[in-house]
Amino acid sequence: MVSQGDAFCPGHVTAFFEVCEDPDPERKGSRGAGLSLSVGVRTTARVREAAQASLDVFVNGRRQRAEVTELAASKVLGSGPYEVKILSETPLPVSQGFGVSAAAALSTAMALDDALGLGMRREDLVRIAHVAEIECGTGLGDVVPASIGGMDLRLEPGAPSHGVVRTFDVREEVLLAVLGPEIPTRSVIRDPAKVAAINRAGSTCVAEFARDPTLPRLFDLGNWFAEETGLASKTVREVVRASRMFGRASMTMLGNSVFAIGNRDQMAPFYLRFGTLIRCEVDNEGARIL
Amino acid sequence: MVSQGDAFCPGHVTAFFEVCEDPDPERKGSRGAGLSLSVGVRTTARVREAAQASLDVFVNGRRQRAEVTELAASKVLGSGPYEVKILSETPLPVSQGFGVSAAAALSTAMALDDALGLGMRREDLVRIAHVAEIECGTGLGDVVPASIGGMDLRLEPGAPSHGVVRTFDVREEVLLAVLGPEIPTRSVIRDPAKVAAINRAGSTCVAEFARDPTLPRLFDLGNWFAEETGLASKTVREVVRASRMFGRASMTMLGNSVFAIGNRDQMAPFYLRFGTLIRCEVDNEGARIL
Repeated sequence: MVSQGDAFCPGHVTAFFEVCEDPDPERKGSRGAGLSLSVGVRTTARVREAAQASLDVFVNGRRQRAEVTELAASKVLGSGPYEVKILSETPLPVSQGFGVSAAAALSTAMALDDALGLGMRREDLVRIAHVAEIECGTGLGDVVPASIGGMDLRLEPGAPSHGVVRTFDVREEVLLAVLGPEIPTRSVIRDPAKVAAINRAGSTCVAEFARDPTLPRLFDLGNWFAEETGLASKTVREVVRASRMFGRASMTMLGNSVFAIGNRDQMAPFYLRFGTLIRCEVDNEGARIL
Repeated sequence: MVSQGDAFCPGHVTAFFEVCEDPDPERKGSRGAGLSLSVGVRTTARVREAAQASLDVFVNGRRQRAEVTELAASKVLGSGPYEVKILSETPLPVSQGFGVSAAAALSTAMALDDALGLGMRREDLVRIAHVAEIECGTGLGDVVPASIGGMDLRLEPGAPSHGVVRTFDVREEVLLAVLGPEIPTRSVIRDPAKVAAINRAGSTCVAEFARDPTLPRLFDLGNWFAEETGLASKTVREVVRASRMFGRASMTMLGNSVFAIGNRDQMAPFYLRFGTLIRCEVDNEGARIL
């Protein structure tokens, strides 16, 4: 007998952040702010009892090593003798700051809990996905806000019961433009000099945003953060500047990409000069069973 | 000592085609027509001698099972005791009719030949990639035209020395719009009823296109083929029809996607309603060492 569960987790973009180290992965993470996206990862978990336990992950129909997803799945599964297939679909590219690994891990944890009828608490599933992301070094703060949706201000880092997050409903169309090659998150957050610059600028942004948590402010502070930390490439800086003609854009942390709001008809042809463009909205619901 | 080779192979879209069965995979393939794209797959092959042979494939930074690439690589490698890393990068989604598996396989074969200094003939590398694609059932006719570039008319199927292809230089911007979920090529080309309908319409299109091999004709015949075979979804049909306002679009065979030419400023916002959009040009050079 095969049982199945389906879940969706929004993608998530971060405008600015601060790395918060802690030996406990539940407490480690980031402060910062961003948006949850109506495009994300949709996962089907198929489970059956078997003599030999196995776990296979397919992303967009291809078998794939997906370490965050595998780690999250193994934490939900425990030592049960299950044959598990994880089938994830996403239109988002990886390593472009769209929170794909977080969304894959959380949608997997939720779909698997549903398929097995475990009835785990939602916050425990979020904790599992957060810890998997931290342990793999692929992200710091996407799981918790993507679980809630909306525009987020992460005041304290970490998994539920440690992390403190305020969220705000936002009805807005968002354009995601990919401008250059991937940036593996690990390569930045494991570099002490980069982290020092990030934390100086990030803590200022968090304090400023807490005083006026509005969408225009998210973009203003994101632009300042990208310049101040030196994380933005020349192309990203130029695109952000040019976008002010028709709206506002900010770099995705961490990717060679921007997210933007404004006049789609004028912005789309401009962004397309660089390659790939994805249209979506802000997701105000957060991760959910389908 | 590590040696390295780098190669690029264009993506490729097919407007219409005819399945040509043959027990010999070098002779099996398709007749049809399409375009090579300036976006494709860029592959770095890193090789060193080792006590134990190994082959690892990474796509966009993630370790991945990539059967066509692995098969092509193993045919180039023979039984040499090498530790091989294949690093492929692409902005194109898979299973959307953009010829990603073909481009990955051919760029891998070329990069590997270069890294090892084997000096294999170009047509042998193209043959290896074609046969790998046929044996895996992931495509029929992308490898040979993508190796040459331009707009292609494939008059006879199969690998070099069997296949007959005419190509035409085209200077044109192309928009690629993803409209729905993936279509695994295998699910169509292994279904006899679908193949019968495809072959009736496809042979007519090839004959018509041979009389007037122009870009507008490619789109006209592609539209007729998509309707006639029933391969186009309702969304694809509606988008193709609406695109005539600003240019022309045709379904990618086989994907829930279209490729289009025309007024980018007017078309881009329209296509973006459906999600992902990629801008490129026709590639007139074909696969190459970098």
